[in-house]
Amino acid sequence: MQRVCFLLMVRADRLDEYRERHAAVWPEMLEALSATGWRNYSLFLREDGLLVGYLETEDFAAAQAGMEAAYVNARWQAEMAPFFESLDGARPDEAMKPLTEVFHLA
Amino acid sequence: MQRVCFLLMVRADRLDEYRERHAAVWPEMLEALSATGWRNYSLFLREDGLLVGYLETEDFAAAQAGMEAAYVNARWQAEMAPFFESLDGARPDEAMKPLTEVFHLA
Repeated sequence: MQRVCFLLMVRADRLDEYRERHAAVWPEMLEALSATGWRNYSLFLREDGLLVGYLETEDFAAAQAGMEAAYVNARWQAEMAPFFESLDGARPDEAMKPLTEVFHLA
Repeated sequence: MQRVCFLLMVRADRLDEYRERHAAVWPEMLEALSATGWRNYSLFLREDGLLVGYLETEDFAAAQAGMEAAYVNARWQAEMAPFFESLDGARPDEAMKPLTEVFHLA
């Protein structure tokens, strides 16, 4: 099982709306995440917009590929893209570069 | 159960040593964390020194208070303090301000 942590930056002027959208993620999106192996998946938001994602999965590359192929994800990511800073044209899910785990205690 | 995420900043010139120290945390420190309720605790390091902590616990305030009272923690935090940026005199564990969770999928 892999533990994955990634960072994104939400635009400071869209934080409230970002929170609201993530309190009501589409059921089809939740189902697609579960079906493609995203487990114990949390998003944490700092007041300045720094967003931390944490999840557990058998194989993050496979979990990402699974969502890449999910039609609902294309719609979700298209709606989420304007919330993020400096993604250089990439979709938010394409900008999820995992950090290195340097410590773990079960 | 609470999921907790916090951020710290490791000095850019101490990253290698920080990684080495966390690959060999003292057994007494690991035991104290477990005994005080720190579960599934990971630290992730970005190349610029941004450090993300994630853990699960029944009560983070109690888990922090438990470590506060652990003698081994005072020694560990004293040794770790010089690795961090701008803690304003606080110990690293005192600077762990949790971020807000805005999304969770089990």
